Amino acid sequence: MIQILRLGHRIPRDERITTHCALVSRAFGVEELYYTGKKDSGFENSIKRVTDNFGGNLSINYIKNPETLVKTKSKQGFFIIHLTMYGENFEKKLKSIKTKKKILIIIGGEKVEPFYYENSDLNISIGNQPHSEVAALGILLYKISKLKNNFKNAKVKIAPSKKGKDIKKYQ
Amino acid sequence: MIQILRLGHRIPRDERITTHCALVSRAFGVEELYYTGKKDSGFENSIKRVTDNFGGNLSINYIKNPETLVKTKSKQGFFIIHLTMYGENFEKKLKSIKTKKKILIIIGGEKVEPFYYENSDLNISIGNQPHSEVAALGILLYKISKLKNNFKNAKVKIAPSKKGKDIKKYQ
Repeated sequence: MIQILRLGHRIPRDERITTHCALVSRAFGVEELYYTGKKDSGFENSIKRVTDNFGGNLSINYIKNPETLVKTKSKQGFFIIHLTMYGENFEKKLKSIKTKKKILIIIGGEKVEPFYYENSDLNISIGNQPHSEVAALGILLYKISKLKNNFKNAKVKIAPSKKGKDIKKYQ
Repeated sequence: MIQILRLGHRIPRDERITTHCALVSRAFGVEELYYTGKKDSGFENSIKRVTDNFGGNLSINYIKNPETLVKTKSKQGFFIIHLTMYGENFEKKLKSIKTKKKILIIIGGEKVEPFYYENSDLNISIGNQPHSEVAALGILLYKISKLKNNFKNAKVKIAPSKKGKDIKKYQ
């Protein structure tokens, strides 16, 4: 089970970046994404529209105290991974990450408090270069999870197509 | 050699998404990113600030006629890949993609004209689900390219670190 914590969401600056983090999480079957910063019903509704149409159970939870969440998840046996351009090479850690049954991935915002570096089991980077947290999350999930092609309750499904669009509607 | 074409950039809506596409491209050593839509000096300057500090040669080129660019690149022997949620499973195509010396990856915008579906050598998807073009680009580049850790002319370098930040300044 993989869950996501997105820190320091800002409006309007992070609206689409956080939305993209949620989309990539859903595509890999994540069912819980927590976020902190500003509560954003526009973001929450846009993900709800996607799950209403394309199915799945991604639940978006706004939280006020992310440090408490990290401590609680840690006590519940979650392995805490902080994705940061300052961290260790992720490829060297994949083998160990894959043995974990419950994982919380933290994605930073503008400024990440020392708490997260200190209270994560791993601080890892997808290349120690300025990067996109969306791409970094996508690459990590690609390595430790699986793309889902079938979601429960989908009203719309896309079939792979050489050219053009093959859209199937079920309702 | 891998180059990127980002279609239909909008201001302010796509500012950060296109910036993230450029950051992930740079992290994988891409040196040419073309974009179309609205010219955006804020986006161009933010990437210039990154390359000024962290090095590398990613060049951002605004173009007015992307269809002409695709035709020209095709004539120059580029293999044209269109990333789209409607496309074929990318994993089945990786072996063939890796044999290509010159690749142009097209990332769509709000609405992608049929031209791009028809004039690409491949339309591929990273999962046929609503996705992030940033994450999709990151995953594709991860599979067909290599993360770069050293860039020419870097004034700032980040060393991998278990906790906290290890920043080295060279100027």
